[in-house]
Amino acid sequence: MSIIVQKYGGTSVGSIERIQAVADRVIATRDKGNQVVVVVSAMSGETNRLISLANQIDKKLSSREMDVLISTGEQVTIALLTMALQQKGATAKSYTGSQIKMLTDNVHSKARIIDIQCENIKTDLDAGNIIVVAGFQGVDELGNITTLGRGGSDTTAVAMAAALNAKECQIYTDVDGVYTTDPRVEPKARKLDQITFEEMLEMASLGSKVLQIRAVEFAGKYNVPLRVLSSFEEGEGAGTLITTEDDEMEQAVISGIAFNRDEAQLTISGVPDQPGVASEILGPITKANIEIDMIVQNVGEDGTTDFTFTVHRNDYAAAIDLLEATGKKLGAKKVKGNDAIVKISLVGVGMRSHAGIASSMFAALAKEAINILMISTSEIKISVVVDEKYLELGVRALHSEFGLEQKTT
Amino acid sequence: MSIIVQKYGGTSVGSIERIQAVADRVIATRDKGNQVVVVVSAMSGETNRLISLANQIDKKLSSREMDVLISTGEQVTIALLTMALQQKGATAKSYTGSQIKMLTDNVHSKARIIDIQCENIKTDLDAGNIIVVAGFQGVDELGNITTLGRGGSDTTAVAMAAALNAKECQIYTDVDGVYTTDPRVEPKARKLDQITFEEMLEMASLGSKVLQIRAVEFAGKYNVPLRVLSSFEEGEGAGTLITTEDDEMEQAVISGIAFNRDEAQLTISGVPDQPGVASEILGPITKANIEIDMIVQNVGEDGTTDFTFTVHRNDYAAAIDLLEATGKKLGAKKVKGNDAIVKISLVGVGMRSHAGIASSMFAALAKEAINILMISTSEIKISVVVDEKYLELGVRALHSEFGLEQKTT
Repeated sequence: MSIIVQKYGGTSVGSIERIQAVADRVIATRDKGNQVVVVVSAMSGETNRLISLANQIDKKLSSREMDVLISTGEQVTIALLTMALQQKGATAKSYTGSQIKMLTDNVHSKARIIDIQCENIKTDLDAGNIIVVAGFQGVDELGNITTLGRGGSDTTAVAMAAALNAKECQIYTDVDGVYTTDPRVEPKARKLDQITFEEMLEMASLGSKVLQIRAVEFAGKYNVPLRVLSSFEEGEGAGTLITTEDDEMEQAVISGIAFNRDEAQLTISGVPDQPGVASEILGPITKANIEIDMIVQNVGEDGTTDFTFTVHRNDYAAAIDLLEATGKKLGAKKVKGNDAIVKISLVGVGMRSHAGIASSMFAALAKEAINILMISTSEIKISVVVDEKYLELGVRALHSEFGLEQKTT
Repeated sequence: MSIIVQKYGGTSVGSIERIQAVADRVIATRDKGNQVVVVVSAMSGETNRLISLANQIDKKLSSREMDVLISTGEQVTIALLTMALQQKGATAKSYTGSQIKMLTDNVHSKARIIDIQCENIKTDLDAGNIIVVAGFQGVDELGNITTLGRGGSDTTAVAMAAALNAKECQIYTDVDGVYTTDPRVEPKARKLDQITFEEMLEMASLGSKVLQIRAVEFAGKYNVPLRVLSSFEEGEGAGTLITTEDDEMEQAVISGIAFNRDEAQLTISGVPDQPGVASEILGPITKANIEIDMIVQNVGEDGTTDFTFTVHRNDYAAAIDLLEATGKKLGAKKVKGNDAIVKISLVGVGMRSHAGIASSMFAALAKEAINILMISTSEIKISVVVDEKYLELGVRALHSEFGLEQKTT
């Protein structure tokens, strides 16, 4: 028998009625001849309720105790869902993070999974049980309760699927799959039937926030077929399957267009072009815990160089201050910034075997008179930075240029 | 350094403000040079909230999953109290039932404690931590979450105190100690400074419901000094200390007067006085899960016997039906019952060494024209059943007869 892991988020289990609907779906999956492991989040609102209780005590709280507190949210859901399954006649059993021995490191509130001991679960599955697992939580080596951070239940589900060698890990969300781009920007955006892990990683990190990036990484690493689908759809075949590249896969050159509105660009120009200058420029920024996204370096005039990078827009003010200090120290000609920019990226594994994608992209943008401020490329992605007012126009132009509204056959 | 275990019930931790007040008291106890372990219940209302969620699914629920569900209540409290302690500058650490390895049997919803592993807690105490433990919950050998049943947090506290060889286990409640009788019945009732475990057991089981009877048994078995006191009082010296009998103890003949309004009396008369008749009479009652309290047997006429016993008033209707069936089978002369009766009991270890207590008791009741319907005696207790209308009169008459309003010196 195949094992299917299903994950339901807070909204899907947000009331007793919804928990009962989840129970029906789980039983339907079992009735198709599968063994089913269900991973659930806290009921929507519950985590915030717990956090607000804690905030009445203090704003900066011990993360160990915070994990003890909020991990109760999923524990409530596993008990209720298991009861609902039993009430509908299924045999079912719940497991907390501690009970499945979801071993993590000891970084409270954003722990990483190290190991899962699945022997008990396999025995229980073989005995005919549906298994209900608390997402988002684990224990460290000393038995302290840890949590995996926002969206950690996705990671729990993938880790369970990997450990159990599941046929598929199904992530139920409020969207019905992964689209060629955001339908709110391009109404012609089309749902993808399949996408590779690598593409999904680029899409997710670039703003199509359907899945936790860590869950996708994990799934890719352990080669767990991952399906994103809506809670209103039927399991296999629906939504978007994220998997490894294979011959049967729809061979589109470009899978989708991701974008990110939250970027800001910083440039320092006329700095000495010598070893170590990059780390002198970026060191103070990363030390201030500011995450750097794109980095581009150009050779300038007279043995100097120009250096441009992007950060999250929220970090722009802090980053520009730091960069100005560095500029003075290095005797830079100029430091300037722009927080009214966006990043648009073409993503597709097909790029590897298709030349000329970049020039088609630039030409399509030029046709709309969109000026490109910055370019960065990788194996399966080309990103450009443009003025934020061109976001919608640029996305639509590219969507049309690469024919994403039509399914390739 | 001495270890003090303190237990706070749901009302004492019913809001963030109250949790902060508990934190102040715990820190005050630590500042007197003690190591402190705090056992807490779920915030008042929380357990009922969880149960009502479950009841929306089903009325007859898996007790395993019910324990998973309601054990989250105490887990929330330990996190919040630990945060409050930390916010006030104390170092503190929380433990769930699973984390202290509070090993119980596997009888969900009324598990019994088998063992506690306290090594980690001792290490943490010696490192200067205040330890906050979730009451009411444990784990069985397989790691399933169990709960100890209503009032189980008292038992957790006593078990912790026993395992840690604590100087005292302080149970904070909404009463300020154990009284000679219920002050609502006899306003002259006096708070006792000390009482023995045995007396407390008799007082508790007879209706003075200050402490869980299992907690008192446990404390007596492991000789853990147990103090009952109000959340508004200061620790040592306050409330009532429940301990072993010793020479220094206030040598009252009678410690208190307990009573129970919830009794009903059943009599079967004229049954053959032969071996096995008692079990034939009581067997069907206990098989129906009806608890029997007092049992009295008199020799009747002509080789027959009369048999009288009491049950909880809620079980009266069922019990009388069963008894009538038995009466027919045994050819009894008569089966009758009375559910308008109460039990009044004198309790005191001093009885052992003082003759004539019973006759003083009966005389005091006779003086008030109170007819005694049934008598039962043990080493440290004399119980009488009387018409329920005489409860208050009887309790006051006895309270005065044995001088309980005055402290003996």
